Amino acid sequence: MKKARKRPSPKSETELLEMISLQLPKPSFDVLTAIGDDCAVIRPSFSKGSLELLKTDALVEGVHFAKGTPWSKVGWKALCRPISDIAAMGGAPLHALITVASSPLWRSSEWSALYRGIGKAAREFGVSVVGGETVRSPGPLFLSVTLTGNVPKKNLKLRSGATPGDLICVTGKLGGSFKSGRHLTFQPRVAEGRWLGGEHGVTAMMDISDGLGSDLPKLAKESDCSFRIAPDGLPLNQGCSFHQGVSDGEDYELLLTVAAKSWPSLQRRWNIASPEVPLTPIGVVLPPGEKSSLLPIGFDHMNPIAS
Amino acid sequence: MKKARKRPSPKSETELLEMISLQLPKPSFDVLTAIGDDCAVIRPSFSKGSLELLKTDALVEGVHFAKGTPWSKVGWKALCRPISDIAAMGGAPLHALITVASSPLWRSSEWSALYRGIGKAAREFGVSVVGGETVRSPGPLFLSVTLTGNVPKKNLKLRSGATPGDLICVTGKLGGSFKSGRHLTFQPRVAEGRWLGGEHGVTAMMDISDGLGSDLPKLAKESDCSFRIAPDGLPLNQGCSFHQGVSDGEDYELLLTVAAKSWPSLQRRWNIASPEVPLTPIGVVLPPGEKSSLLPIGFDHMNPIAS
Repeated sequence: MKKARKRPSPKSETELLEMISLQLPKPSFDVLTAIGDDCAVIRPSFSKGSLELLKTDALVEGVHFAKGTPWSKVGWKALCRPISDIAAMGGAPLHALITVASSPLWRSSEWSALYRGIGKAAREFGVSVVGGETVRSPGPLFLSVTLTGNVPKKNLKLRSGATPGDLICVTGKLGGSFKSGRHLTFQPRVAEGRWLGGEHGVTAMMDISDGLGSDLPKLAKESDCSFRIAPDGLPLNQGCSFHQGVSDGEDYELLLTVAAKSWPSLQRRWNIASPEVPLTPIGVVLPPGEKSSLLPIGFDHMNPIAS
Repeated sequence: MKKARKRPSPKSETELLEMISLQLPKPSFDVLTAIGDDCAVIRPSFSKGSLELLKTDALVEGVHFAKGTPWSKVGWKALCRPISDIAAMGGAPLHALITVASSPLWRSSEWSALYRGIGKAAREFGVSVVGGETVRSPGPLFLSVTLTGNVPKKNLKLRSGATPGDLICVTGKLGGSFKSGRHLTFQPRVAEGRWLGGEHGVTAMMDISDGLGSDLPKLAKESDCSFRIAPDGLPLNQGCSFHQGVSDGEDYELLLTVAAKSWPSLQRRWNIASPEVPLTPIGVVLPPGEKSSLLPIGFDHMNPIAS
């Protein structure tokens, strides 16, 4: 196999920007000015009754991904994490701004690989990268992504809408994301989130990033409810225990509550719309006074345990 | 003088968020959900013909501010820098997302001071902080701010609109920003930028962050023009040489071009609208073939020299 020849470091900000642009899809028609002026300029596509979504999310080397992870996978993960948040509101992602603080020793091949991953995710989910910044830092690699999105007002799903009696459901399967490397290659549930956003029976929704054990209590708190989980009903990835499924985190699946009376019809239509992604009832929403199931706790960003 | 008692570190993400919120102004009426869900949710206030502006900007300890700088000043600077970019398009700032990567040893008093500075700028310029993230990092403090804004389409000022014969002007005075500490306390020219945005005679505009010597060539390149500067016409801060005025950077003044025939009337009305901020013609836009004035170069983010 031919050894890849490392390209030298980009010589200027302009050269770096040109290199980065090569990896990214063309901005969509609503982008009047992307890189090259003080700000990006967007012609808002908001129709009446549509809402704007804003999200920012950061990755730190050694915290959110291990040293030595291929940069293209880091790029994919960096953009797909906030895409997952937009999806969890029932929305569609639109425009991204990407800030990278990297070592002064970073070479062109490293920049290209990182933006190849970002560009792949941008293409797949229809995101235009409209700006950002590259800075040199003596610290670990730091990546900060801001993403905008929109959602028809009637499709917006908050964490606060669950009511007692609703079923608690998750998409896909849980657990083992770090061990399997899935945290670097996951598919944010954009189509599924938009579909669920259009369902009146879905009362609350969020994505599972810190683990069900951390995230479900947040949804319950915002909805002022308690919850009960059926431990053997949890859809687990192969080789995962209940404990891992609840506390590993970084599943990027959707956690939602569904009005009990809407469930039979919703389930039937889901199976036609998304035959490859399971949607599993895992428990029930209880009145606020009741005792919630005790779940092992996942990831707290103030005390990161993952590496 | 009583010695300030250091408060301990915040114990959880929730405690930290509550502490931060205390320092920030209440979100404006168009913010439906700020912190507490997967994304911030905004009711777009865009009227017909208004454009959205997006900007992201990062500060690194030891690069954009020296170790030991009071955190409240760092907070002010962090938000005022992208505000200056929005102003340079003729726009108004709206919503901010703020990401902080800090040492695990940061105490409550440090968080409070940082967000006091951010909050002060947010109040002064009508910005709602609608989201963000706090992460622990072994590296230097890293702050990333994303800011949205809007501008009536007819008021949008790009870098690309200058034509030969236009006057080149700057607001305020240039030079010595680092030495005087002005880079931590500057006033972004929001009112002035919006006023200039409404002037048909202003053909191009940007803010001076890297120094006139770096920024004017960028404007000229985007406008496909050359330029001539009158060295003794430059408005300089006290004690600054021409060289410093051109290359120090971080002035956060507006650099603009004005159609020659609009200048007399614009100047007269500027002096009434902004009696405290000088607007000074410093040169002229030339056809693309001509030789531009040679100016000392300022700050390149790829090769930061400031500390």
